[in-house]
Amino acid sequence: MIKAYVFDVYGTLFDVHSVIHKCNQFFPHKGSKISHTWREKQLEYSYLRQLMGNYTSFSTVTKDALRYAVHKHGEQLDPQTEKELFHAYFHLDPYPEVKEVLSQLQHKKLAVFSNGSHDMLDPLIAQSELHHLFDEIISVDEIQQFKPTLASYEHARKCLNVKPEEVLFMSSNGWDITGAKNYGFQTAWINRHHLPVEELNLEPHTIYSNLSGILEWE
Amino acid sequence: MIKAYVFDVYGTLFDVHSVIHKCNQFFPHKGSKISHTWREKQLEYSYLRQLMGNYTSFSTVTKDALRYAVHKHGEQLDPQTEKELFHAYFHLDPYPEVKEVLSQLQHKKLAVFSNGSHDMLDPLIAQSELHHLFDEIISVDEIQQFKPTLASYEHARKCLNVKPEEVLFMSSNGWDITGAKNYGFQTAWINRHHLPVEELNLEPHTIYSNLSGILEWE
Repeated sequence: MIKAYVFDVYGTLFDVHSVIHKCNQFFPHKGSKISHTWREKQLEYSYLRQLMGNYTSFSTVTKDALRYAVHKHGEQLDPQTEKELFHAYFHLDPYPEVKEVLSQLQHKKLAVFSNGSHDMLDPLIAQSELHHLFDEIISVDEIQQFKPTLASYEHARKCLNVKPEEVLFMSSNGWDITGAKNYGFQTAWINRHHLPVEELNLEPHTIYSNLSGILEWE
Repeated sequence: MIKAYVFDVYGTLFDVHSVIHKCNQFFPHKGSKISHTWREKQLEYSYLRQLMGNYTSFSTVTKDALRYAVHKHGEQLDPQTEKELFHAYFHLDPYPEVKEVLSQLQHKKLAVFSNGSHDMLDPLIAQSELHHLFDEIISVDEIQQFKPTLASYEHARKCLNVKPEEVLFMSSNGWDITGAKNYGFQTAWINRHHLPVEELNLEPHTIYSNLSGILEWE
């Protein structure tokens, strides 16, 4: 019996690569490469900072990763461009099915749970017109423990006041689904890019190609 | 005053992408792609397992990452091929300057310090004919704490019985140099691929394009 539907944000509800267009404006023909490195380093820096005991907010991590990505592809980043590209993260495109799926689940407890800090998460959700569809916006920044640590998922569970197995957790990120299963949530991997299952001995309970599939859990 | 010269192994002393030739034998024209995904996932899985509290040896992580890489590039992996490709990690090529640099430092305490477990590290170093040049082969597996945790570098320091600032640590991996500086070692980043400095507020003390540069620390 699922009591709370909990959604990851970046890559799951919103397409992080909708920043490519903005990147191309400043760095013609390099937008896709910069965006992909930006995302890779954003994740890597969140892992490394947690491992080193050097937590900082996801907004700082995101700016740091952007700087690395621009340098890696042979460009320089002035403060104004950095500011504009970072702000692109407040205007990511939601995936097409998101609003409809959330609307159909309004009789359930719905939450987002993200590595994003509130300073980047709240404006994104507000401008997307999805805000009224969620009961809670939960950030790991409240306890300074990035996913996929056990403590991060435990924080989400506490906020929702449910048992681990009463949560259905959705993410398009294989590492996040692995972490959620490791903690004890029910898991639905939204495999948008047709990737193989992660080889971490923690297979997701179910796999869908987009969020519409989760309606069968009702 | 440097008392111990400590070397990372994979990517620093040995070229992990010397497995491309073997990968091409089994998966024609896909060797380079498979090798690069293999390495990326090997690192990612070591971070994720540490973060999730799910440590397993680097040899298991390496096999898991290989399986993912082969699947990602649209191929299947039978047990015999898995075994042969994994064994390619026992025969990686040392970078050309390694033996000469180590030979010139024989009056110093020299060690390797790796995420690799002894079951993969010891055969590699033995077959490379570098074994007699090192005083110690230190693996994080002895304490089950992957780099870049503070505990991992502390383990290496204890094994060598020196102070943190008496160690010069060499790695080609930006994340590893960051972790070593975070702990308190002197650091020389061997930037073999001309990458930007990691944006983690922990810049290496020195940067060289190969290991020969470290001879100036004498």
